[in-house]
Amino acid sequence: MDVSKFFPMWDKLTPAQQQQLSQSATSRTEKKGTVLHHGSVDCAGLFLIQSGQLRAYILSDEGREITIYRLFEMDICLFSASCMMKSIQFEITIEAEKDTEFWSIPPDVYKQIMEESAPLANYTSEIMATHFSDAMWLIEQVMWKSFDKRLAAFLLEESALDGSNTLKITHEAIGNHLGTAREVVTRMLRYFQNEGIVKLTRGSVEIIDTKKLTQLGQ
Amino acid sequence: MDVSKFFPMWDKLTPAQQQQLSQSATSRTEKKGTVLHHGSVDCAGLFLIQSGQLRAYILSDEGREITIYRLFEMDICLFSASCMMKSIQFEITIEAEKDTEFWSIPPDVYKQIMEESAPLANYTSEIMATHFSDAMWLIEQVMWKSFDKRLAAFLLEESALDGSNTLKITHEAIGNHLGTAREVVTRMLRYFQNEGIVKLTRGSVEIIDTKKLTQLGQ
Repeated sequence: MDVSKFFPMWDKLTPAQQQQLSQSATSRTEKKGTVLHHGSVDCAGLFLIQSGQLRAYILSDEGREITIYRLFEMDICLFSASCMMKSIQFEITIEAEKDTEFWSIPPDVYKQIMEESAPLANYTSEIMATHFSDAMWLIEQVMWKSFDKRLAAFLLEESALDGSNTLKITHEAIGNHLGTAREVVTRMLRYFQNEGIVKLTRGSVEIIDTKKLTQLGQ
Repeated sequence: MDVSKFFPMWDKLTPAQQQQLSQSATSRTEKKGTVLHHGSVDCAGLFLIQSGQLRAYILSDEGREITIYRLFEMDICLFSASCMMKSIQFEITIEAEKDTEFWSIPPDVYKQIMEESAPLANYTSEIMATHFSDAMWLIEQVMWKSFDKRLAAFLLEESALDGSNTLKITHEAIGNHLGTAREVVTRMLRYFQNEGIVKLTRGSVEIIDTKKLTQLGQ
């Protein structure tokens, strides 16, 4: 997959800038489980995901993790090049969750082009805004409103009542039970699915890791 | 205070862009307690704070609030113009915490210049990165590590032991008690101070709102 495909505003770069981005990019492949970036010190490069899956998370002193967002094919990983922006002052760990193939662009090359090109600067801002929104969503739903706990407890209760791990229930019905909008239920169920806790199919929620769900519900 | 003073990269704007920013800015004054922006729909303008104080917070369904960051003289309020970036998808409320005087720049004017000017786009990115870092700090310290609770409990305990609301203790000593770096203690104490819970002076911490501190410590 070409580097140009990752940038919807590619045509607004000058030929020289396009060439710089393409030529500086090196192809990397990392095995599942590899830590690609850790903390605010490391500054490996801007990653363009060709295939596989990355996970960005923060780590507590006690070694607990919380996932902030995931990156899939065609996504750009900004925080592996966080040194580009001096105001990014938090520590995030980025790990390959599947075998992952990606382009890596050196931070100094990318930064230099961003300083010249408003379209690239604005596009980079939008990527950051997306991650910011994910983080704010976590603050609001997971930590602030404890919606993850409430949803986990509800699913376990329903499963016990039904005597089954597969719940035939719509997201809207769950929302009505918990006083939350359907969209919030859907998003949290997808978060659970990405964490390997449930499996979603049309019209049903299957619990595949009761232990994890129980831990969440406590 | 001139609009130009708010932008360290002002000289890198064209004369036309400088004029557009200056001329589109309108001066506003709002009383303490006024809500200037609410949620993701409202898009009042980009605010440049001349004097006073704004607070950005999120609101839970039950009406509880959590402060994400504060803005003081010379700061720029980006999220009152969040419609400029389509990827900002979270709801934040911005309120005048003191009588506040500020310039307001229409989002469409600012956006247009940002689309032309890489220096303005990058500067705006840096502002967003600062707020992002504040939010991540909150996730890490307040919610994830419960450091606010632990610090509140510690201050109340010390106060009871000393029989005084004024604790003669350094931030470093507090950090040693709680197994945390001095910088983290200082930052959280400042957060408490901004919330009107403690007053900090050299070498001491004065508890001025025991009730709020007790609520936090629970």
